[in-house]
Amino acid sequence: MSLSEASSDVVVVGGGIVGTAVAWRAVEAGLSVTLLDPSPGDGATHAAAGMLAPVSESWFGESALARLGIAGLAAWPRFAADLARATGIDVGLRETGTLVAAYDADDVAHLRRWLALHAELGLEPTELTGTQARRREPLLGHHVAGAAWVPGDHVADPRTTRAALSAALHAHPGAAVVRSAAVRLERDAGAVVGVHDDAGTLHRAGAVVLAAGWRSGELAAAPVRPVRGQTLRLDAPPGTAPEHVVRGRVQGRPVYVVPRPPGTGSGPGTTAEHREVVVGATSEEGPADRRPSAGGVFALLRDARALVPALDEAAFVEATLRARPATPDNLPLVGPSATPGLHLATGHHRGGVLLAPLTAEAVVAGLTGAALPPALSVADPDRFTPLLEGAS
Amino acid sequence: MSLSEASSDVVVVGGGIVGTAVAWRAVEAGLSVTLLDPSPGDGATHAAAGMLAPVSESWFGESALARLGIAGLAAWPRFAADLARATGIDVGLRETGTLVAAYDADDVAHLRRWLALHAELGLEPTELTGTQARRREPLLGHHVAGAAWVPGDHVADPRTTRAALSAALHAHPGAAVVRSAAVRLERDAGAVVGVHDDAGTLHRAGAVVLAAGWRSGELAAAPVRPVRGQTLRLDAPPGTAPEHVVRGRVQGRPVYVVPRPPGTGSGPGTTAEHREVVVGATSEEGPADRRPSAGGVFALLRDARALVPALDEAAFVEATLRARPATPDNLPLVGPSATPGLHLATGHHRGGVLLAPLTAEAVVAGLTGAALPPALSVADPDRFTPLLEGAS
Repeated sequence: MSLSEASSDVVVVGGGIVGTAVAWRAVEAGLSVTLLDPSPGDGATHAAAGMLAPVSESWFGESALARLGIAGLAAWPRFAADLARATGIDVGLRETGTLVAAYDADDVAHLRRWLALHAELGLEPTELTGTQARRREPLLGHHVAGAAWVPGDHVADPRTTRAALSAALHAHPGAAVVRSAAVRLERDAGAVVGVHDDAGTLHRAGAVVLAAGWRSGELAAAPVRPVRGQTLRLDAPPGTAPEHVVRGRVQGRPVYVVPRPPGTGSGPGTTAEHREVVVGATSEEGPADRRPSAGGVFALLRDARALVPALDEAAFVEATLRARPATPDNLPLVGPSATPGLHLATGHHRGGVLLAPLTAEAVVAGLTGAALPPALSVADPDRFTPLLEGAS
Repeated sequence: MSLSEASSDVVVVGGGIVGTAVAWRAVEAGLSVTLLDPSPGDGATHAAAGMLAPVSESWFGESALARLGIAGLAAWPRFAADLARATGIDVGLRETGTLVAAYDADDVAHLRRWLALHAELGLEPTELTGTQARRREPLLGHHVAGAAWVPGDHVADPRTTRAALSAALHAHPGAAVVRSAAVRLERDAGAVVGVHDDAGTLHRAGAVVLAAGWRSGELAAAPVRPVRGQTLRLDAPPGTAPEHVVRGRVQGRPVYVVPRPPGTGSGPGTTAEHREVVVGATSEEGPADRRPSAGGVFALLRDARALVPALDEAAFVEATLRARPATPDNLPLVGPSATPGLHLATGHHRGGVLLAPLTAEAVVAGLTGAALPPALSVADPDRFTPLLEGAS
């Protein structure tokens, strides 16, 4: 029983970077779109550092994910350029290169296995000596035992990107953003024909796109679970932030340090020379609590300062914890499902920012009856069947 | 040149716990009082943990400070009772006892020197074995090598105390709180007769009390310098917070963990069983920057979790950095100065919360021509002469 009804071609559930990108590409394709989210951008996007790093992140047994990531990265330049044209906002897409650091002897052994894997895949990272690494990145800690250089990785600013997408959406006559929460799918003869929200409105639509992160499993039985990730934001004066993304392992624990360009600092006393630095990320299975733990803050600072000791002098701005949507095989759920009217754009785990542009293209292809990008064949939403059993 | 004038018996410059306590005791004594502060309570009081610990804190060469602290603690019960009567607010004065912990062998050696000092002073801490210490405080870390028990120390909540003082002041017809900053003293024939504020008002008064923390040196040449201190606030679910104050040394670095009673937690998801836990404090000479550093947050968490590992599971709520007012001899500046009309209530360094009640009594005694409490003879504002040379 709904108090009111509204209708559009498409309802997108979820206003993170993925849902907002889908909504924007859909209105650009001529569809009318309603985006539902009680607080857009306050999910996993809010915590994400924005590394576009399919090479640095790939590991044994994840070659499908690596290939998907490489296709995802290839979609970014046009996406950023289109968005800049539509809004005038620079979303911070930069090719910084990534220094991959190994702290102790075990971490170096792990780095060498990773380099061997990449040689097999025909990818390009090269091992550096300690001296070479410190020449490239003088703020690297003295105890760092080994390193490699990955030239192709990029970085973008997820909060700015989502804000730009939101601005583009608000400026478009075909789009409506409704700040309420989806509570239930409307079904008719086996097809999904709309979404009920918590304000009592039924949003009827020819198609519903689930882009609600780990909460997508609450509306349809999408096999996503929350995996919490904590990041820290620092305001770094000159001389305390590395020039490149530094990621690596410290006594077996993964950590990354992502510097943004000068002028991105925040807080009282920041100047045009200060940079935002994002340190991340924990990875914790379990309930989707949003409160960073003292232990998580400690572990991130311990490992980040092991790689870049000068970070000690940066101002501590923020600790943020959000849950990523993870699937059983770590690959996302993207495109039309077997249920008529139901499309998915979730399950991106650590790759939501990287894969947002490609996911948006794929979902719009599905909505308009076009062929999906081949890289997304691994992301079939129905590979874990039955998708809608138990859905409300 | 002032745009307007106002007058009262007393102007108190500074609305931290010390200034607000002075203002309240002064209006209770029948004086009319104007309290000047652009943002009351946002100085050192905002960071303070509220340990009332003259015994745990005393060290060689500081017996005058220890005696002053013991007198300061003795003034607290009546102060808290009077404040509760005036406002109905419980300011959290509790006798928890303090467990003093020593992490490694060097820390134990330091603890034993401290115990010997206290035996000399006739004070009461007793050394505990590791087993005894863990029986008293089961959350104490396994690596803690030694401990002592101080039964007499108390704790109070500085933010709540200041808020209660502010409520009492607002309810009193003799008090006015003006949210502007003092910029200059008004002098007449060698006497201080008022204060100019940054809104262009001259606040005339028979007496001016400087209680502006480390900024007191900006109005008169009070020999106070900023010493920054950083504290963390955690929201601790049951089983993660110690029952007693735990303080100690970890590889030579002092740290404390102050649990408040159940129901003092904060943030989403907190329950009536959660406690606020304050971890502190760094001590850094230098400019009075208010932004906590990544290195400071790291060091506090590292040392606190060495003493109480379960804190890892508590939620990270806040990191706060403020500057304490320190003097050359670590003793405060309290009472009438040699300059007619100028009274001081500053320089309390780490003891502002502990000494606020006694300081308020002493300053009001000075304002009304009564004798100062003997314990404050060491706090003569003119012991570093000349106080007002260079003052505006």
